[in-house]
Amino acid sequence: MKFVKELKRTEYSGNLRAQHVGQKVVLMGWVNTRRDHGSLVFIDLRDREGLVQVVLDPNKSDTASAKDFRSEYVVAIEGVVRARPDGMKNSKLATGEVEVEATRCEILNTAATVPFQIDDENVNEMLRLKYRYLDLRSPRLQHNLILRHRVARLVREFLSGNGFLEVETPILFKSTPEGARDYLVPSRVNPGNFYALPQSPQILKQLLMVSGYDRYFQIARCFRDEDLRADRQPEFSQIDMEMSFIDVEDILDLNERMLRHIWKEIKGIDVPKLQRMTYFEAMNRYGSDKPDTRFAMEIVDLSEVAQGSGFKVFDDALSRGGIVRGLNIPSGGTFSRGQFDKLTDLAKKNGAKGLVWMKQDADGTINSPASKFVSQEKLKAMFTQLGCTAADCALVVADDFDPACSALSALRLHMGRELKLIDTSKYNFLWVVDFPLLEYSPDDKRWVSRHHPFTSPTDEFFEDMINNNEKAYPKMLAKAYDLVCNGYEMGGGSIRIYRNEIQQAIFRLLGMSEEDIQAKFGFFVDALKYGTPPHGGIAWGMDRLVMLLAQTDAIREVIAFPKTAKATDLMSDAPSPVHRDQLVEVGVRLSAQAEKALEENNK
Amino acid sequence: MKFVKELKRTEYSGNLRAQHVGQKVVLMGWVNTRRDHGSLVFIDLRDREGLVQVVLDPNKSDTASAKDFRSEYVVAIEGVVRARPDGMKNSKLATGEVEVEATRCEILNTAATVPFQIDDENVNEMLRLKYRYLDLRSPRLQHNLILRHRVARLVREFLSGNGFLEVETPILFKSTPEGARDYLVPSRVNPGNFYALPQSPQILKQLLMVSGYDRYFQIARCFRDEDLRADRQPEFSQIDMEMSFIDVEDILDLNERMLRHIWKEIKGIDVPKLQRMTYFEAMNRYGSDKPDTRFAMEIVDLSEVAQGSGFKVFDDALSRGGIVRGLNIPSGGTFSRGQFDKLTDLAKKNGAKGLVWMKQDADGTINSPASKFVSQEKLKAMFTQLGCTAADCALVVADDFDPACSALSALRLHMGRELKLIDTSKYNFLWVVDFPLLEYSPDDKRWVSRHHPFTSPTDEFFEDMINNNEKAYPKMLAKAYDLVCNGYEMGGGSIRIYRNEIQQAIFRLLGMSEEDIQAKFGFFVDALKYGTPPHGGIAWGMDRLVMLLAQTDAIREVIAFPKTAKATDLMSDAPSPVHRDQLVEVGVRLSAQAEKALEENNK
Repeated sequence: MKFVKELKRTEYSGNLRAQHVGQKVVLMGWVNTRRDHGSLVFIDLRDREGLVQVVLDPNKSDTASAKDFRSEYVVAIEGVVRARPDGMKNSKLATGEVEVEATRCEILNTAATVPFQIDDENVNEMLRLKYRYLDLRSPRLQHNLILRHRVARLVREFLSGNGFLEVETPILFKSTPEGARDYLVPSRVNPGNFYALPQSPQILKQLLMVSGYDRYFQIARCFRDEDLRADRQPEFSQIDMEMSFIDVEDILDLNERMLRHIWKEIKGIDVPKLQRMTYFEAMNRYGSDKPDTRFAMEIVDLSEVAQGSGFKVFDDALSRGGIVRGLNIPSGGTFSRGQFDKLTDLAKKNGAKGLVWMKQDADGTINSPASKFVSQEKLKAMFTQLGCTAADCALVVADDFDPACSALSALRLHMGRELKLIDTSKYNFLWVVDFPLLEYSPDDKRWVSRHHPFTSPTDEFFEDMINNNEKAYPKMLAKAYDLVCNGYEMGGGSIRIYRNEIQQAIFRLLGMSEEDIQAKFGFFVDALKYGTPPHGGIAWGMDRLVMLLAQTDAIREVIAFPKTAKATDLMSDAPSPVHRDQLVEVGVRLSAQAEKALEENNK
Repeated sequence: MKFVKELKRTEYSGNLRAQHVGQKVVLMGWVNTRRDHGSLVFIDLRDREGLVQVVLDPNKSDTASAKDFRSEYVVAIEGVVRARPDGMKNSKLATGEVEVEATRCEILNTAATVPFQIDDENVNEMLRLKYRYLDLRSPRLQHNLILRHRVARLVREFLSGNGFLEVETPILFKSTPEGARDYLVPSRVNPGNFYALPQSPQILKQLLMVSGYDRYFQIARCFRDEDLRADRQPEFSQIDMEMSFIDVEDILDLNERMLRHIWKEIKGIDVPKLQRMTYFEAMNRYGSDKPDTRFAMEIVDLSEVAQGSGFKVFDDALSRGGIVRGLNIPSGGTFSRGQFDKLTDLAKKNGAKGLVWMKQDADGTINSPASKFVSQEKLKAMFTQLGCTAADCALVVADDFDPACSALSALRLHMGRELKLIDTSKYNFLWVVDFPLLEYSPDDKRWVSRHHPFTSPTDEFFEDMINNNEKAYPKMLAKAYDLVCNGYEMGGGSIRIYRNEIQQAIFRLLGMSEEDIQAKFGFFVDALKYGTPPHGGIAWGMDRLVMLLAQTDAIREVIAFPKTAKATDLMSDAPSPVHRDQLVEVGVRLSAQAEKALEENNK
């Protein structure tokens, strides 16, 4: 009887429990660790499901090869599961109540010495990325990828069960005139022409609605050639869906049910009915359209009391139509000048011109850099309005709406973390709705779409839109919605415009001519003419979803073969130079700069 | 009550049956056709699931808008299902026993006149591809895409149920040194460097086995920049899987169970245990390693009787180690000289130097272009050995093994179709196994791998391989297997090499130095050193699978947004020229040839 060919694995090592005691099993996996006790060899055998302890006697002929077992060797074991004696149980291990007494074993493959210990979490990430196939052996990444598989499966079964069809859309597609930077693919057959990798299947999923597919979904690969941040990858997956003959409520309801299904199945958590918050409420209370509502520390509007303070910073902001708003930082009364300087830097990094702090001295006077300009009375009124006591401090920002909100949100999140106000075991979901449809671009001196120009206004603005009633533009709301959790945008979408007269009116207000429209959206606008149903959709960030479920902040922890912030794969060394002939074939040459960069790299 | 917002669709039109009679329903869809009878308007309302007849009275206020209904308008109907009178049932329509009497209706959107009738199958394919979103409304394509969704779902659930994990592998990866031509993506962040789109996740799935994921699958997008044939697309999907701690039988067994599951669920067909055929048996009997076994017309070896014929064509072939083989074409005795000339062209197009035909004249003599050189006795012996009667004809090819097989296979398939010997309702599956591991390249004067150099030889050749026993090379078989159906390769795979000493021996026999190995397979060969389990896998062509189930020969019929044979998308006009700035950013310029091609296109 030979292992693998005739003697098949009967169980995963990690699945053995007390109920298996007495059973004969065949296991195959990796030697995680080897310990010798007297004449016996003890190993932890590792496979996808976990570890189990195996005891081997190298003095018996059928288990003689155990003496050669080394770390990461691939071995096969035949043996009997037995209970560990009471004192020897290992409660840290899922299999800790049992061990396997080997009756036969074989080395299936040897292993060179690994560059780092598989379960050592203190290894430099660059080294772990180079040897990704070894890091992928860690329980940490195995858990995350198994989780990802389960989530994808739940999503697919939920959506299929709700009448959605998964349709694969092309990866080699057309460069989009707006949005982020495209990845380009030169065409060999059509020299001088390029495909683009899709930033999302937006246009294609809307076309599937025009085609009558009614309910579409796809776990779709998307590509954006943007400067990467820690939580971005050049390619990422989204749970992309679109429905016909529906309005906002239908999408929100369906997605809420899907969310509840996922959290129940994966986490055993019953997610309650989701709160709805308008965009402006979210901005006013949290300074962000993706608020982390796991802690309060809400923003308080001080504009009224700040009115007429004589302080240039306040007066300028208010006279420009801006705001003066602040936060009460509990127990911030002890902060030093140095700490306030750091908070001021944070406010500036997030777009505000500065930060005004206040704390109360022992004698009751308000200590603040603004005290030279603002009366104690006004300062006290603000301090009080924020709900501050002598133990607390106030952080106040005066600026235009957007930068002030942005700075206050950053301050709030920073202080929430610093003061450990956030219950990290909690999932706080909410829908943010009623986004503004348009925003005025001072650069272009015209209105632009906040999302894309196919996003529908809310019903009450249909008439204003058709009549191009400019007065209504600042108030116009979009049928757009974001699914937010713990300060992250998990997903976002909108109801699309399907009525021609509204689409034409939007184009007019965006200042587009017929020619512009054709050049930018040609075939898609044509398609909308041939009987387009009311439709809308949403896309969830698949990576973000798994990150939230895995409770990790690093996107690289939920992707099998991720890229670095420089968009490189350290394992395969992609991207890499290619043979000149390959470039000739596809009709391109390197630019002088690229040639030079390449040469310098080769030095 | 407004449609969509308050009045939701209750049923798909195409799902209404006699059991719904008396029910109040809300339907939403497209006006497929409109007919007026007296004062009533009859429409066929179409949605994803099919058509149903709706009767509307435009003289009633709630259904007044029916008078404006036109082809492809999007409409909503509230009404009651009623049985059609006996003489009015339409047995061609799944909903033909019922119709809906509208009580209320609304035009949700109008439609411009469509460039072709949705269900007209005689429309030029170029026009249909340009308006793909309209062609996708046809029952034909809706059926195929719904089928594709069902197949993907069955596959995912089957594999997940068997312990497989779906893992997403990168699309932006590394250019492979061998194989087909890569699609390249210039890197902006790393100028002068390129990603390649994967031709398959081969290396990555093997790495997942090295990482201990044990059972991997993915419905993976793959890319090959090859000159396209009718049944090829630049991007295609494969059901890709890999397993550890297994041998050939395990993969074949699992895949056979999956095949049986799919055919049972989709077609209601019980697929019997699959026949196995070695590569050489398939070549000898059918001239092809993907034989269409739905009809016999097997190849007969005539080499022995052709021996010493004195006919240069036969003698040369045999003395070179080639073969003389033929086919009996039933009722081919009536073929004209012109028909034989066409068959000769077909043989030549498939690599043979020529074709010898024979038929029997009324007086019993064999009529053949070879009769000037070969004795009647020998000709008759060959004719008889082929089993030909006076009504039949013989087609004989004398050549080296490969071109002779290729020509005979082409002749056999052609005649099988011409003579209608193929039962097109049948699915004949088989495994083709025991492929040769190596083939001798006369150009390179060395042995090369028939698949890739990671394919394992069969066990009996392990020792010969390790010892680099050259005499064994021609006989060496691979642990490779193809799943074949009706003359198509549905899938193929192999057990991979996991033992270092065999891998090194293969590289030696391929004439590779350590440097070559590093340059060509670097990180992957490194990975194999760190404890690689026995493993193997297979990939099914997803498009081909759906084609077989949909009984179509055109790959474009099973893909939502396909490309032409020139790799263009006629709908979006991809690939297309891009802005120069985009090229500057990614460090490339057009070659002079590409510039010229582009200019000429613009003329």
